[in-house]
Amino acid sequence: MATSEPRAAGGDQDPNSANLRPPTTRFLQKNNSLEEKGRLAGQKNLLSCDNSDRDARFRRTETDFSNLFARDLLPAKNGEEPTMQFLLEVVDILTNYVKKTFDRSTKVLDFHHPHQLLEGIEGFNLELSDQPESLEQILVDCRDTLKYGVRTGHPRFFNQLSSGLDIIGLAGEWLTSTANTNMFTYEIAPVFVLMEQLTLKKMREMIGWPNGEGDGLFSPGGAISNMYSVMIARYKYFPEVKTKGMSAAPRLVLFTSEHSHYSIKKAGAALGFGTDNVILLSTDERGRVIPADLEAKILDAKQKGYVPLFVNATAGSTVYGAFDPISEIADICEKYNLWLHVDGAWGGGLLMSRKHRHKLNGIERANSVTWNPHKMMGVPLQCSAILVREKGILAGCNSMCAGYLFQPDKQYDVTYDTGDKAIQCGRHVDIFKFWLMWKAKGTAGFEQHIDKCLDLSQYLYNKIKNREGYEMVFDGVPQHTNVCFWYIPPSLRGMPDGDERREKLHRVAPKIKAMMMESGTTMVGYQPQGNKVNFFRMVVSNPSATQSDIDFLIDEIERLGHDL
Amino acid sequence: MATSEPRAAGGDQDPNSANLRPPTTRFLQKNNSLEEKGRLAGQKNLLSCDNSDRDARFRRTETDFSNLFARDLLPAKNGEEPTMQFLLEVVDILTNYVKKTFDRSTKVLDFHHPHQLLEGIEGFNLELSDQPESLEQILVDCRDTLKYGVRTGHPRFFNQLSSGLDIIGLAGEWLTSTANTNMFTYEIAPVFVLMEQLTLKKMREMIGWPNGEGDGLFSPGGAISNMYSVMIARYKYFPEVKTKGMSAAPRLVLFTSEHSHYSIKKAGAALGFGTDNVILLSTDERGRVIPADLEAKILDAKQKGYVPLFVNATAGSTVYGAFDPISEIADICEKYNLWLHVDGAWGGGLLMSRKHRHKLNGIERANSVTWNPHKMMGVPLQCSAILVREKGILAGCNSMCAGYLFQPDKQYDVTYDTGDKAIQCGRHVDIFKFWLMWKAKGTAGFEQHIDKCLDLSQYLYNKIKNREGYEMVFDGVPQHTNVCFWYIPPSLRGMPDGDERREKLHRVAPKIKAMMMESGTTMVGYQPQGNKVNFFRMVVSNPSATQSDIDFLIDEIERLGHDL
Repeated sequence: MATSEPRAAGGDQDPNSANLRPPTTRFLQKNNSLEEKGRLAGQKNLLSCDNSDRDARFRRTETDFSNLFARDLLPAKNGEEPTMQFLLEVVDILTNYVKKTFDRSTKVLDFHHPHQLLEGIEGFNLELSDQPESLEQILVDCRDTLKYGVRTGHPRFFNQLSSGLDIIGLAGEWLTSTANTNMFTYEIAPVFVLMEQLTLKKMREMIGWPNGEGDGLFSPGGAISNMYSVMIARYKYFPEVKTKGMSAAPRLVLFTSEHSHYSIKKAGAALGFGTDNVILLSTDERGRVIPADLEAKILDAKQKGYVPLFVNATAGSTVYGAFDPISEIADICEKYNLWLHVDGAWGGGLLMSRKHRHKLNGIERANSVTWNPHKMMGVPLQCSAILVREKGILAGCNSMCAGYLFQPDKQYDVTYDTGDKAIQCGRHVDIFKFWLMWKAKGTAGFEQHIDKCLDLSQYLYNKIKNREGYEMVFDGVPQHTNVCFWYIPPSLRGMPDGDERREKLHRVAPKIKAMMMESGTTMVGYQPQGNKVNFFRMVVSNPSATQSDIDFLIDEIERLGHDL
Repeated sequence: MATSEPRAAGGDQDPNSANLRPPTTRFLQKNNSLEEKGRLAGQKNLLSCDNSDRDARFRRTETDFSNLFARDLLPAKNGEEPTMQFLLEVVDILTNYVKKTFDRSTKVLDFHHPHQLLEGIEGFNLELSDQPESLEQILVDCRDTLKYGVRTGHPRFFNQLSSGLDIIGLAGEWLTSTANTNMFTYEIAPVFVLMEQLTLKKMREMIGWPNGEGDGLFSPGGAISNMYSVMIARYKYFPEVKTKGMSAAPRLVLFTSEHSHYSIKKAGAALGFGTDNVILLSTDERGRVIPADLEAKILDAKQKGYVPLFVNATAGSTVYGAFDPISEIADICEKYNLWLHVDGAWGGGLLMSRKHRHKLNGIERANSVTWNPHKMMGVPLQCSAILVREKGILAGCNSMCAGYLFQPDKQYDVTYDTGDKAIQCGRHVDIFKFWLMWKAKGTAGFEQHIDKCLDLSQYLYNKIKNREGYEMVFDGVPQHTNVCFWYIPPSLRGMPDGDERREKLHRVAPKIKAMMMESGTTMVGYQPQGNKVNFFRMVVSNPSATQSDIDFLIDEIERLGHDL
């Protein structure tokens, strides 16, 4: 499709907003709203100057985007003015979105099925074409993209381990994309390279490695960080694998909890170990690795002639939020000379809290740590660190010393060129938003955020643990913010345990979740685990959530699930 | 350091800017400027309303950021107003940066050594602290971060394969970070997941696969995309490696050009093949693989009992911009039943150009293709696609079917949940900026961009090929925008070839580059290659570059290198 006439982005005009923004913006305001009138009436245009009535149309009358195209923007001649106007119009869309994200009268999502969106709902056409669209259409596309998306920063979005919309982090990301460089060399990212170095050092200090010594990188997510840990463990014990391949090593085995993240298995598959050689460890009923099981499985593997290489201890498992007993695992790793990795993608943030960091006791004995600030610490996606205790091993493992990429004869100290330590070449700048948030909040601010989230999840736990219609998946106060529970509709409450009840209960959470998404009021995850049928996994990492949002979630589950 | 009083960000007040912006912004304007007075006098504040004199201070007098902190922003009570003011202040910094980026009187960079920045130059303190900084300080930090960075969108930045600052792409990135979600499931990224699907299909159509069928993903860069290709090739021929590890396969070998990107070797090391089993192919003097050498090396490997698995053909090599003869390589791959991957990270963009796409003839016969829109197509970092001809193999290779992550009983068609195809779990949204650019430019707009860049590089080639003081690294018109050349200072021009001249010439490019960076006027890369001493590699992917910028570069090289 090629047209320069913008599609009307649906929706009738709302009389309350007639003096605010052009139709397309009103549309966004209107359709995502739960309690429309009150909110719209009180709204004002914050991009405008003081006398906003005049200003709201100032830019519109000045700039007619329907006759402007990408080619009219910078670097085009006379492109500066339309560029600024266009960017400000985009910012207007974005700041409106930000405001509504925190507004509880706004829906979390406006759900549509894939086929509905693909058919071009209300003129939102996803197809690409040969000819350019006008900037007016591009602005409509931006609004529609946000309209049909999910507000992950909404106070009632609890669906993922990453949630929330940190304003400082957002500003950091806007700056990062404006700087548009990568972490390859000091030459093209001097400030970001140094920020990464200092931040990683600070994180290593919090882990407890002496003087924060060691190494590390920000990687494109926890799965890649965990993959790094397996690679460097292999390099440490069998460096010849780098040149000779896996055939140079004996049959190596990796150990990780049956509750651990699947990325350890994915790494096992990708790196040539094979998933059969990723041994799953049994856990207690809280999802924590049983150290004796680890030792037994190490001995079993050795007896079979395999070579135990690597143990992953999870600090904050995905579903239960369980913390494996790191110290006891570290004892065993020392005894058998194994690499100890701690996957703190989810739980690493608790190192920031004096109250909760004891749950990671022993992490200072790890050889490597994954820690995702984009989860518990509310940093925008993506922001994941792989931290390594031994200096130089990351470079040893990954460097190829390509002279055409890393010139040793540059005028500055080229030890700051980090590119060759990575399995990537160009590497996205993930550090700035995190650095800026740390500056703006201080360690103290992260601590408050984490303590508050854990308090909130305990509030939820206390609220439902004895409430009629709820069963907890495991007993006791959760270690992390994960609260796992079944909601039992009245129709199932008298039913004796057995296959029929299990089958029915298995269908409850998906049904409630589907209705939740259709009504757009809140989002929470569910899943089965082992022999346990589908249950809700509530997590709190969203700084905008309050007790009232927890109450709302419970009310909503009961409202939607009551008649199932 | 913990202080709420902003550091003065250096520099004296400039009398010309006294009526424009507060000191910290003036600093940015002042210090990055080459021709200060003229530009500043003509500048105006584009965030302001019409009568900008009053408006420029409107927001400043209203919002005193020195007493505001991150905790005062949303979701704080009454946080909306300071949030909007803060974001607008950030946008003001960013739009000023954008304007200056395209301004040739602005420096490309303001170079400082690592130790200088670490010492806290002009009060720019990179260290993190326990206590929060004021928002005023955060804004100063934002300005300083940009000030000491590199303007990769500057018309005279030629240092990397990725350059330029596309305004539509920038808007796309700002929106992406505001939406702050990931590509894991349709549930949390409905629009982005569909955009990715449609865009990948369009890319496969351009490759020439029937009906655009196949599969693919956007990955965190070309190195990871190339790693995917090796993984899926292995899975195609030896699926049991996924569970059993490399010991289930014979000794597998990979083939790639000696001029290819190091990521193939990195993948060989990481995935357990070993770099010894990555066989480098000889090239002609233009850096193109010699097909007969491939066949000879395949036969040699077979004779040794190894199993040839995979051939990488480079479409646009990093240094020479060479295109391997894909059709001839495809013939050999078919003959010996090998996986053919085309690394078009750099050259893939030429598929968009009717004039230049013939250089990739035969790519439709590839089993997989890497194509980085963040390089030749000017999409902001990161944006790299791995495209696969056979449907389902990506999932077969990588999926772990973790029930706790991918619930099959959701209310929508879960085949849209792409997360399990990836080696990542969460995956950054890299698609939107690219989709938006494609909408805004059309295929036609990308074609114009690419044709213009190739024209410009030919202009450079024609200008220097017979110019006194220049030697081309290889003869003939470059295939891509890479122009590789030595600048020979007058002192070396009469000197006979030999070790002494080679050693001296080897030092010329680094010296000129160092002076270039110190003066901040332009940036271009250099490197040795094989037995060739350091030479300049000029590349053009920056849409803001013109013939005058090419002229400037040559003048600058001669100015800086004349007396060496």
